[in-house]
Amino acid sequence: MNFKSILFSVNVLASIICTAQTNQIKVIEDFKPSSVNQQGKLYPQVNSERRVRASILAPQANKVQLDLGGIKYDMVKDEKGIWTGVSEPQDEGFHYYQLNIDGASVPDPGTVYFYGAGRLGSAIEIPAADQEFFAIRDVPHGLVSENIYFSKLTNSFRRCFVYTPANYNEDSKTRFPVLYLQHGSFEDETGWAVQGKANLILDNLIASKKSVPMIIVMDNGYAYKPQSNDSRQESVFEEVVIQEIIPMIDTKFRTIANRENRAIAGLSMGANQTMRIMMNNLDIFSHYGGFSGTSNYPSADAIDVNSFLDGKFKDGETINKKIKLFWLGLGTKEPSPFPGSVRAFRKMLEKQSIKYVYYESPETAHEWLTWRRCLNQFASKIFK
Amino acid sequence: MNFKSILFSVNVLASIICTAQTNQIKVIEDFKPSSVNQQGKLYPQVNSERRVRASILAPQANKVQLDLGGIKYDMVKDEKGIWTGVSEPQDEGFHYYQLNIDGASVPDPGTVYFYGAGRLGSAIEIPAADQEFFAIRDVPHGLVSENIYFSKLTNSFRRCFVYTPANYNEDSKTRFPVLYLQHGSFEDETGWAVQGKANLILDNLIASKKSVPMIIVMDNGYAYKPQSNDSRQESVFEEVVIQEIIPMIDTKFRTIANRENRAIAGLSMGANQTMRIMMNNLDIFSHYGGFSGTSNYPSADAIDVNSFLDGKFKDGETINKKIKLFWLGLGTKEPSPFPGSVRAFRKMLEKQSIKYVYYESPETAHEWLTWRRCLNQFASKIFK
Repeated sequence: MNFKSILFSVNVLASIICTAQTNQIKVIEDFKPSSVNQQGKLYPQVNSERRVRASILAPQANKVQLDLGGIKYDMVKDEKGIWTGVSEPQDEGFHYYQLNIDGASVPDPGTVYFYGAGRLGSAIEIPAADQEFFAIRDVPHGLVSENIYFSKLTNSFRRCFVYTPANYNEDSKTRFPVLYLQHGSFEDETGWAVQGKANLILDNLIASKKSVPMIIVMDNGYAYKPQSNDSRQESVFEEVVIQEIIPMIDTKFRTIANRENRAIAGLSMGANQTMRIMMNNLDIFSHYGGFSGTSNYPSADAIDVNSFLDGKFKDGETINKKIKLFWLGLGTKEPSPFPGSVRAFRKMLEKQSIKYVYYESPETAHEWLTWRRCLNQFASKIFK
Repeated sequence: MNFKSILFSVNVLASIICTAQTNQIKVIEDFKPSSVNQQGKLYPQVNSERRVRASILAPQANKVQLDLGGIKYDMVKDEKGIWTGVSEPQDEGFHYYQLNIDGASVPDPGTVYFYGAGRLGSAIEIPAADQEFFAIRDVPHGLVSENIYFSKLTNSFRRCFVYTPANYNEDSKTRFPVLYLQHGSFEDETGWAVQGKANLILDNLIASKKSVPMIIVMDNGYAYKPQSNDSRQESVFEEVVIQEIIPMIDTKFRTIANRENRAIAGLSMGANQTMRIMMNNLDIFSHYGGFSGTSNYPSADAIDVNSFLDGKFKDGETINKKIKLFWLGLGTKEPSPFPGSVRAFRKMLEKQSIKYVYYESPETAHEWLTWRRCLNQFASKIFK
């Protein structure tokens, strides 16, 4: 038995095993290419049951899997060496995934790539019933601008993306309120303007007059002091926001530079960070949005209002006067510890008689459709 | 012999074969992570000989190759299932590549991804001796803005990226000249601002007063008429530039909207396209840059000036009066047919006594370091 015939035997054997495993799935054959595929790429595809079908040419591989939502689905090889596999039905919205080829976890060559889950990799878009709110439509479009700057506090080059609404360039005088909008853990400053579709959501809201035109600043929530050899990593994100980003934005862009016209919001880790920044700087911000997160994360214990965030929530009356909108959102399918910690936080707000708005995204988990919907709700309520 | 032991035998056998093939290479062990790796990723790496070392975990794979510069280098597996391979020395600059795992051609999970060669995939940056001109430096940085628009001519949403220089936002009155800058075949509107580093090149040129501050518009050179079922694909890129892009840019941005303050340039296919657009619209543009391409491509035959581009080069005297700069650039290592067709084109220019500037990029082929250098040269000469 020579090398090639061993290989051939292994492949045939593998095909038989995988076919046996996956032939049991009955799927509806109405698959269509995912909307986030590279141009001209037919796979991956999604069907009306919200199943994902992936496909890749790998003639010499022993085992290929679709790794999606924490499950590795075996794929099956055809006579041309093309492996194909189908997932269980997925939630509506945007999900990261990868292919696994003989133990190598790699991006699917069929998709565009997104930064999330700590890597630049593949994702699938499962069409949502309400997707028109983030669709590209024939309305006036704002710009998303990459802004590079040197940060003295971190001794590094950083960048943010800045959304300016369509009418920003119509005249040279109008000034705009600003929303500072943050990503979650293992994500970066690209998240909101790429998979978050913040620009398209705002274009649509502004065109239908549901939102006032505003600037949105999306920076990177990871910011650390320059390290000496033996020092621990110390976050200076709040200092970067207050001392570097806001003054830069107020200089470079036509903002209305006062607290009434500044909002801050974030998702998950970003909700946690921005709540802390908000409460430490009520002279700078007047609107807060927490999407799938609060600063008591991950605890579901009752909050001691005297010690939590240095007692910043103790005086409910003053908070109600100063904060024009305190907004929280959560997906109904979010896993622990998110529902528990958000619930504990809401109880504290209620005990303190602090006014807030609470929104639930139906049938979504700790993922981007939840956060697109949160932004859509939140952005329609601020600066009014 | 069960399934697992067959697999094991195949892997061991494959390792022995590959080791035998690659152990002969003597390499200098001063490899460093490539500058276009994803944050925190150690591989791929480049050494002082300009060799590339790639590495990937693929414990069950039979064969893994590094596919770079038209050569597939066998990689070797260690006891942990990590495959590693080293290439021959590469040219300085930016090269696309991929990994091949048991016949599957996939992006390397270690790198950032770039659109080129018709796909979004991996690339390696081999440090260039002159790389300071496109490095990120502590100088004022301009913005790169994504601009989405609906094109009636193609009946589709399109986008361009627009560079505005650092001083664009300093006041609301100053107006700027505009360079329209095009990518090559199998590339798109992202090329110039990502791997082309057009923004950093201009930031550096403007900071050192080698260039005048200018706006750069980078759009997609693929633009087709909406197709009826049986019609051939018909490019309308020139019409999109003249009827849609230029009026949009002159409305949205503070341009100096006259021919003296408009340049057009492109690389390869983009050089070919923009030369045609330039010569058809001398009332609109006054500066031309052709990087690694001309409109007689791919022919190296002597050009018949009466028929070439409808005789647009017949009247050398008028051309010398109207065109303020006619600029051509080429890498010294470019493959056929580029040197031949550019040579034939230059002979025609000389025969017509048409003034032009010719630049050669040392030791680079039909790749991005050639084009970064071309832009660096060209941008320092226009609008003066």
